[in-house]
Amino acid sequence: MERTLIKKIPENEGKEILIKGRALNIRNLGNIIFLIVQDYTGTIQVVWEKETDAKTGDAVVIEGIVRKENRAKGGFEIGGKKLEVVSNIIEDLPFDLAKNDLNLTISNLLDYRPLSLRHPKIQAIFKLYDMLLKGYEIVMREEGFTEIKTPKILGAATEGGANFFQIKYFDQKAYLAQSPQFYKQIMAGVFERVFEIGAAFRAEPHFTTRHVNEYTSLDAEMAFIENFYDVAKMLNKVLRKIFQNVGEEGKEYLNLYGVKMPEVPEEIPYVKLAEIKEIIKKKYKYSVPKNTDIDPEGERLAGRYAKEEYNSDFIFITHYPWKDKPFYTMPSSENPEETYGFDLLLKGMEIVTGSQRIHLYDKLIENMKKKGVKPKGMEFYLDIFKYAMPPHGGWGMGSERLVQQILELKSVKEAVLFPRDVKRLSP
Amino acid sequence: MERTLIKKIPENEGKEILIKGRALNIRNLGNIIFLIVQDYTGTIQVVWEKETDAKTGDAVVIEGIVRKENRAKGGFEIGGKKLEVVSNIIEDLPFDLAKNDLNLTISNLLDYRPLSLRHPKIQAIFKLYDMLLKGYEIVMREEGFTEIKTPKILGAATEGGANFFQIKYFDQKAYLAQSPQFYKQIMAGVFERVFEIGAAFRAEPHFTTRHVNEYTSLDAEMAFIENFYDVAKMLNKVLRKIFQNVGEEGKEYLNLYGVKMPEVPEEIPYVKLAEIKEIIKKKYKYSVPKNTDIDPEGERLAGRYAKEEYNSDFIFITHYPWKDKPFYTMPSSENPEETYGFDLLLKGMEIVTGSQRIHLYDKLIENMKKKGVKPKGMEFYLDIFKYAMPPHGGWGMGSERLVQQILELKSVKEAVLFPRDVKRLSP
Repeated sequence: MERTLIKKIPENEGKEILIKGRALNIRNLGNIIFLIVQDYTGTIQVVWEKETDAKTGDAVVIEGIVRKENRAKGGFEIGGKKLEVVSNIIEDLPFDLAKNDLNLTISNLLDYRPLSLRHPKIQAIFKLYDMLLKGYEIVMREEGFTEIKTPKILGAATEGGANFFQIKYFDQKAYLAQSPQFYKQIMAGVFERVFEIGAAFRAEPHFTTRHVNEYTSLDAEMAFIENFYDVAKMLNKVLRKIFQNVGEEGKEYLNLYGVKMPEVPEEIPYVKLAEIKEIIKKKYKYSVPKNTDIDPEGERLAGRYAKEEYNSDFIFITHYPWKDKPFYTMPSSENPEETYGFDLLLKGMEIVTGSQRIHLYDKLIENMKKKGVKPKGMEFYLDIFKYAMPPHGGWGMGSERLVQQILELKSVKEAVLFPRDVKRLSP
Repeated sequence: MERTLIKKIPENEGKEILIKGRALNIRNLGNIIFLIVQDYTGTIQVVWEKETDAKTGDAVVIEGIVRKENRAKGGFEIGGKKLEVVSNIIEDLPFDLAKNDLNLTISNLLDYRPLSLRHPKIQAIFKLYDMLLKGYEIVMREEGFTEIKTPKILGAATEGGANFFQIKYFDQKAYLAQSPQFYKQIMAGVFERVFEIGAAFRAEPHFTTRHVNEYTSLDAEMAFIENFYDVAKMLNKVLRKIFQNVGEEGKEYLNLYGVKMPEVPEEIPYVKLAEIKEIIKKKYKYSVPKNTDIDPEGERLAGRYAKEEYNSDFIFITHYPWKDKPFYTMPSSENPEETYGFDLLLKGMEIVTGSQRIHLYDKLIENMKKKGVKPKGMEFYLDIFKYAMPPHGGWGMGSERLVQQILELKSVKEAVLFPRDVKRLSP
């Protein structure tokens, strides 16, 4: 018999079908056994009235009759006639995948990742993640962006940050890319609008709930902009389309976390960094420490302000200080101590960093000198500015933070399949 | 005035519009100048009858009137009224981007990559690449696969191959992933069908036209298969859909290379490795060297056979030897010296490697012992087989080789934006 997918069961009422999947839950009531079986299209209840040694977690193939059953999820169940275990668990599961919540500590959750991922509520995180990737892929193309793949192995640690992982590359040293920054700018000179979905690596020795050392960055770069607002507006538009779609398609997964998809305003509010600091101080009696542009508590309060003032889960913070931004960030023409760099916060946490870039060669070299950045190792990048780079800007978005904030997960590590932190290299 | 995209020009006949883009080519005939301007939606001819210091390569903003002109590409041109150079070249281009062909050596082509990428014929490679990515993203989802992102930093060099790049990871050693093999298998136990588009790293000291040390792998894994043919058939179906679509959408780019999109047969022919070796020997008098399963010349002749015998650009070579395949490959039940591992060739070059995997714990451990593979560092992977892995298999496809073979490029490096080889770490 051909396999029937579980989502097709309602079309097969009264018919004998064959399904394949995992026994998510088995309740044995003595003379009757209820199995919840999951395949990649859904779950179904199977009623089994004979003996079986099938256990929760087994991979099974079941033949049976489809019948209406109002008490079953989806309104149908299968009356089982034949049950084959095609692969069985040979060790008891270390926790109960049939409970509504796993209630594991984060370190247990991650240590047992290959198994904890099978829990429906954990699966929901990555189903939602898949939808966000899909949304980004589709919407960026709708907006005329070309998808690119740029190298993650770099010849020099030059992107304007510290904290590079070093690689032994044959008889040379090399480094893991922190972002596709230089390459996406070069490509904005080729295709005008480009996007990349790729791994980014940060050798930051942080232990926080908002950092991992390897993440998936949603990057974009666009040329022929008038100013950084063109970039921010494009980001606004892209997120609005993606979020609307995920809000509809992802309801089932959002419900498991008791959250709704945040609404992306048609115009996300903007506030300058210097201003939001004043507002926070006045309104919430909090002063951002002097050694940072803005700290997590400052971001949280900025998010609170956005909600209270604009009823928005999002807020753009703009005009980051020149001293804190990399050398390629366009300085403000009104105030040289500020730049056209911005962050986007979602529910009080930075999820995107973007800016207009310097596009004129002389200006770029001058800015590097002022910052004491040496050109060595980035000649290939600097040279392209001799060949007429149009005005351009772009962003980098942390894909996992997006999910973290949408589902209100305690740690970003919950939104990474197999996260990497200072101590964690496995699974 | 608002910007008009070049593709919208035919809708604006007789109107005054503003366009932005790069001057791809400027021909100065004395009293009249022809500019070809490119934006991210197309190219247009602009006729300019005044003086200008605009040069080929400059980023320009032009206002003018749209008019019909049969001799111009697309049937329209712009009569220029205002021309502003928003960013100008400050050094002469090292080669002529306006020629039909760049005719650079591969090393010049790559050394000047940020600039050579601006040539329309080079752009075509990466427009086609974008279409293939898009196709994979869409078609895999149509077939029920969930997109995943797995770590590229590994705690141990265990995938069953040598040639790992080593990373200094804080105070530990780590390694760059050669493939998402273990993780995609684990995820096949979670979502049944998963795919990943991600970077893969091979520390192979090769200098060939078919290898790079970092590439983008199109991976997939699917569970509840009957045998490896289920995997091969899915791959066949996916490629057929993608290729049909790219064949239509990508005509303009394919034409630049004088090629047609290869037709993917409804059923790609299969031949066992042992058989194709015999066929090649008999038909083409070529013996594959004894120290390899099949060499590039053998693949080339297998491709020739597929064309001559089946009029197919594709051929599956199956049943690779047990001794040459990694420990997780399912051995053949008819002949223990063979496996259910296969390759897919396109125009005589391997573009995909796939197999059914061993899904039973005891069998996997036994196979590892036979091969002398130590479990250290992969406990997290092996443990999952104690928890009922369904029968499964998958593939890894080299995205850049796909493009290389479609466009018949001499080297795979031409199909990578910024390729990495033993010596090349920049640009």
